[in-house]
Amino acid sequence: MEVISVSNQIELRLSGSGGQGLLLAGIIISEAAITEGKNAVQTQSYGPEARGGASKAEVIISDSDIDFPKVTEPDMMLALTQVACDKYAKTLTKKGTLIIDSRIKVPAGIKAKKIISVPILDTATEKVGKSIVGNIVALGVIQSVTNVVSKEALEKAVMNRIPRGTEELNRYALEEGYKLV
Amino acid sequence: MEVISVSNQIELRLSGSGGQGLLLAGIIISEAAITEGKNAVQTQSYGPEARGGASKAEVIISDSDIDFPKVTEPDMMLALTQVACDKYAKTLTKKGTLIIDSRIKVPAGIKAKKIISVPILDTATEKVGKSIVGNIVALGVIQSVTNVVSKEALEKAVMNRIPRGTEELNRYALEEGYKLV
Repeated sequence: MEVISVSNQIELRLSGSGGQGLLLAGIIISEAAITEGKNAVQTQSYGPEARGGASKAEVIISDSDIDFPKVTEPDMMLALTQVACDKYAKTLTKKGTLIIDSRIKVPAGIKAKKIISVPILDTATEKVGKSIVGNIVALGVIQSVTNVVSKEALEKAVMNRIPRGTEELNRYALEEGYKLV
Repeated sequence: MEVISVSNQIELRLSGSGGQGLLLAGIIISEAAITEGKNAVQTQSYGPEARGGASKAEVIISDSDIDFPKVTEPDMMLALTQVACDKYAKTLTKKGTLIIDSRIKVPAGIKAKKIISVPILDTATEKVGKSIVGNIVALGVIQSVTNVVSKEALEKAVMNRIPRGTEELNRYALEEGYKLV
């Protein structure tokens, strides 16, 4: 038998619709975590769920080995669409933090320690000027709320994964995400 | 209790070193599977393993819901480097197929139904002319060996995920992968 310490393990769920770049966001957080010497497991589920208009990517970050790669009770859940929030917020527990785009209405009966509503998509579209960087704005918000990775590690990981020539745009998106919190 | 049917479920492990594009290969196979109405879960582990020079991405594809997202006994394992093969081939069982780059020596004591050795990396470098498409050549090999997704679905998924302007190169890499089997 193996005793699992969960004290230094954080489970993140990123949800929204296909095309919002949440898989990439999960990969970026994972890569930021390993540059800090942590371990990470990133999972993406595809299927009827995804076809139903809701998509999720999950990440577990830990100081030690990770034995359970399936997120069951996320410490933090991000929802960028109402459909995704309705579908995936149910498994939040009283220990969890829910971060939602401000267009979303919190479904009835949701348990969470904290619910944070911020205009992620509007910030991407109107302030940064590109709806496609919504995922990067969301990463800035997640960093500020959870501190699960440092700003330095996150920025480095973002820069490694974006198309060349979009560095300034993405740095700006990240900054605007930090400011939202 | 839930009874899991494994008959229509296939578990794939893609292993090699960081930078070989195996995470992308896993994402592509998953996306090909869902265009065929199947379900997929794609998992990437980062950590001390990855820092040790070996990296793996895993995919489970099924006609029905997938409840166990951690690959434990892969039906097919790909290894592009000796280090990855030595590290990850141990968990293969007698039902599994091992696909290795022809530079790799099969470690002693490996159990597998079939071991297929093909010059994936040399084909990418010498025939296609770009070592970076090794992962796409590997996808062609995997398709031919396992038939887990159709050639049509795979090609479509590859085209969705590669940089614009590299379509011909990647189509060629895929074709050369098919031909290796």
